[in-house]
Amino acid sequence: MTKNKLVLYNSIKKKKEVFEPLNPPFVGLYVCGPTVYGDPHLGHVRPAITYDVLFRYLKYLNYRVRYVRNITDVGHLERDSDDGEDKILKKAIIEQLEPMEVAQYYTNSYKYQISKFNVLPPSIEPQASGHIIEQQQMIGQILKNGYAYLKNGSVYFDVEEYNKKYNYGKLSGRKIDELLSNTRELEGQDEKKNSFDFALWKRAEDKHIMRWPSEWGDGFPGWHLECSTMSTKYLGEVFDIHGGGMDLLFPHHECEIAQSTAANGKESVKYWMHNNMITIEGQKMGKSLGNFILLEEMFSGKHEKLEKAYSPMTIRFFMLQAHYRSTLDFSNEALQASEKGLERLLNAFQLLDNLPVSEKSSYDIETLKQRAFNALNDDLNTPVMLSHLFDAAKYINSVKAGTESINSSDLASLKEIFNDLLFDIGGLLPDKESSSTDSKLGEVMDILLNLRIAAKANKDFATADKIRDQLQAAGFIIKDKKDGFEWELKN
Amino acid sequence: MTKNKLVLYNSIKKKKEVFEPLNPPFVGLYVCGPTVYGDPHLGHVRPAITYDVLFRYLKYLNYRVRYVRNITDVGHLERDSDDGEDKILKKAIIEQLEPMEVAQYYTNSYKYQISKFNVLPPSIEPQASGHIIEQQQMIGQILKNGYAYLKNGSVYFDVEEYNKKYNYGKLSGRKIDELLSNTRELEGQDEKKNSFDFALWKRAEDKHIMRWPSEWGDGFPGWHLECSTMSTKYLGEVFDIHGGGMDLLFPHHECEIAQSTAANGKESVKYWMHNNMITIEGQKMGKSLGNFILLEEMFSGKHEKLEKAYSPMTIRFFMLQAHYRSTLDFSNEALQASEKGLERLLNAFQLLDNLPVSEKSSYDIETLKQRAFNALNDDLNTPVMLSHLFDAAKYINSVKAGTESINSSDLASLKEIFNDLLFDIGGLLPDKESSSTDSKLGEVMDILLNLRIAAKANKDFATADKIRDQLQAAGFIIKDKKDGFEWELKN
Repeated sequence: MTKNKLVLYNSIKKKKEVFEPLNPPFVGLYVCGPTVYGDPHLGHVRPAITYDVLFRYLKYLNYRVRYVRNITDVGHLERDSDDGEDKILKKAIIEQLEPMEVAQYYTNSYKYQISKFNVLPPSIEPQASGHIIEQQQMIGQILKNGYAYLKNGSVYFDVEEYNKKYNYGKLSGRKIDELLSNTRELEGQDEKKNSFDFALWKRAEDKHIMRWPSEWGDGFPGWHLECSTMSTKYLGEVFDIHGGGMDLLFPHHECEIAQSTAANGKESVKYWMHNNMITIEGQKMGKSLGNFILLEEMFSGKHEKLEKAYSPMTIRFFMLQAHYRSTLDFSNEALQASEKGLERLLNAFQLLDNLPVSEKSSYDIETLKQRAFNALNDDLNTPVMLSHLFDAAKYINSVKAGTESINSSDLASLKEIFNDLLFDIGGLLPDKESSSTDSKLGEVMDILLNLRIAAKANKDFATADKIRDQLQAAGFIIKDKKDGFEWELKN
Repeated sequence: MTKNKLVLYNSIKKKKEVFEPLNPPFVGLYVCGPTVYGDPHLGHVRPAITYDVLFRYLKYLNYRVRYVRNITDVGHLERDSDDGEDKILKKAIIEQLEPMEVAQYYTNSYKYQISKFNVLPPSIEPQASGHIIEQQQMIGQILKNGYAYLKNGSVYFDVEEYNKKYNYGKLSGRKIDELLSNTRELEGQDEKKNSFDFALWKRAEDKHIMRWPSEWGDGFPGWHLECSTMSTKYLGEVFDIHGGGMDLLFPHHECEIAQSTAANGKESVKYWMHNNMITIEGQKMGKSLGNFILLEEMFSGKHEKLEKAYSPMTIRFFMLQAHYRSTLDFSNEALQASEKGLERLLNAFQLLDNLPVSEKSSYDIETLKQRAFNALNDDLNTPVMLSHLFDAAKYINSVKAGTESINSSDLASLKEIFNDLLFDIGGLLPDKESSSTDSKLGEVMDILLNLRIAAKANKDFATADKIRDQLQAAGFIIKDKKDGFEWELKN
């Protein structure tokens, strides 16, 4: 029950708009998924959770949502040089593996780790490599419409030509004139007319293993193309919502708009949504900065930036405590505050089962509920929504303490509010233990192994050996290190 | 360490052969995977576990295995009528869904349920719909070589023409003359030359949503083709092992051989392996017989044929107790016997941690080990392998009871035997409940709290208090009891 309508910030309009699907009750949602050439890290989580909350809320509102999130397993050109060298391919050559074996490994890893956040699987997760024909068809259409050109077996999108009729830069606000004057002199040997032209189809050099035949010769599709093609295939030429990280706004999404418009003569997306980036202690996350944190490192606490392990639910809650369009800074302090905050809400929820019921309530639950939903309806303002739940928790504690009262219908209503907002839409899990035993195991192991170090220091080798033997019997591998210990679970 | 070589029954030679990979240490393994148009059921489990054991054992033998198992998400023609109506498509029309949304749903469901059996994910799980170009290329090659013909936008494999040069029926033993006389008069309006010709490419009628463009018009590939194409793409024109259920031997695998031979002029598979079928109380499993059991029904026990729920490990163990080439009959009695059998082995394994060690052993562990591996090497004879582990369990119980003795090196060897055969190769999980961190936490807490009891008994109250304080700080509530302790996680 939500009186107000859902309002979403539309990046292309740069303002909030009432969400009105093209073909209610159906909603088409497309989100840019992972490039599967590396381990899943913190950067993967924010879009996964942001659009999971949207997906869950739209379903809660009884829309029938088809949520498509792609897997980029081919054609991701190096962003800077655009030299046609495929990241996956590079890795595969290094590892002497079939590219699809590498892609499969990291796809499995992504799905497994992301599932720990209680993120619902999308309706369709199409692979770029599985849609080569469709991409070739779209290239053919763009060529036919005069917005692309063939050069040495590659096909490039002709941005200047496109911009004569349409508006390249519509989403990002970039001006083609500035792009032109900035970059034209830098390019010399390039086979593109303009540096900002982008590949739709790249000729495959002999060394390229990932290649497909085409009327333009053997090659592979350009990175931007897959999203245009697969969103069209599964959601139609015009669909409701396209989401992704803000880092993809330019050039990726700008190019998507250009491709769809050039092929179909119309823009494909009604609402563009962009989640903001995460930072680590105020810094951008990057491999070179030493603050690049893998998800398994978050869960185990084994990273120099981490004081302890953090459970998937702590991280999920932490993300919901910021608005998706704000930057979000990871710090141990902030995460531990979220851990406690989530605990407080779950404790209050558990209290609901044993609360004394009165004739009257001393609190206006209906207003609280409406305000919480109003927050969600206001461009998915989850932090404000949660703040209302914190108010509810405070009230519940007061009822427990006897300083406030609640009647039975309000009690039922409160349970429903928590179930709907925190679990069903927020995607958090009601069970505290299920989300914390992983990290609790680490804490208990620390206590036990430090005890063993102390025993050794006291020459109590019987105790030290007993601890080791018993842990080994329980299936742990214990490694002594100069500065402490390491452990892992066998298998 | 296995002295004998692995021997596998080669279905096409109808005899056992020493396994010698084409390019050691690499091994290419292709297995026919699920058609994703329905819930995963008991029939899906046997091939998944059979080839998982093979995959695990080959890796144990230090082969570098690329294991490809396909996902049939398109082109599975109705077997009987071969009328081009795709099963997935039929379902999608009924449900008013995009075919790939149905396929995604059942793919997720298959992977999730199968993972519960501790089945390792294959190296690559290619989708038929993702390899249309490759299938078209193979059709082109077969047409060029004269073993296929085009009729009304469909391409059919010309079995009679193929059989003039090669041997159609080589795997299944069917004779084309008999096939001819049996079926020719039944066909009238069919556009095929002979009834046993099969589709490589089917023209898509207007009603078909799953369709791709081709030089022969819009259509979709025939079912048999995907396996030939994807095995060639990921494992090469000739590869080591092709596995699948015995029900696929004809026509599917026979057609695969014909396709590969017609396209490449040579057979593609060195060793063909076929697992036998399962029956339910002596009957074939079938939806119409009321004995069609879904995996979730097995795990919940909610099916009229089931007396109780059976865990994935019970079912896995049950399957290993039969040779993969024998039929396997499901009954409550047999499953409950397996449940007890697995428990017996796991109990014996746990006893190994607390066995009294003597100077001498009263049992020849080395011979037991060799015999167990000999059984595995004899065409993966897991029931015989397990019978040796049962002998070991009996011996372990006798050592515990004091009627047999074991020395320390044999004890270590026994642990290794269980670890290798039961867990690493057999794929069973050592922990009776589950090997999740949940139960590990319990085990570690036991170790830690018993240590605290011992400290108190030794009047080392400093250590005892330290353990309690640290656990409390980590969020545990510790309650001392007369006969020990209890603990729980706070909140």
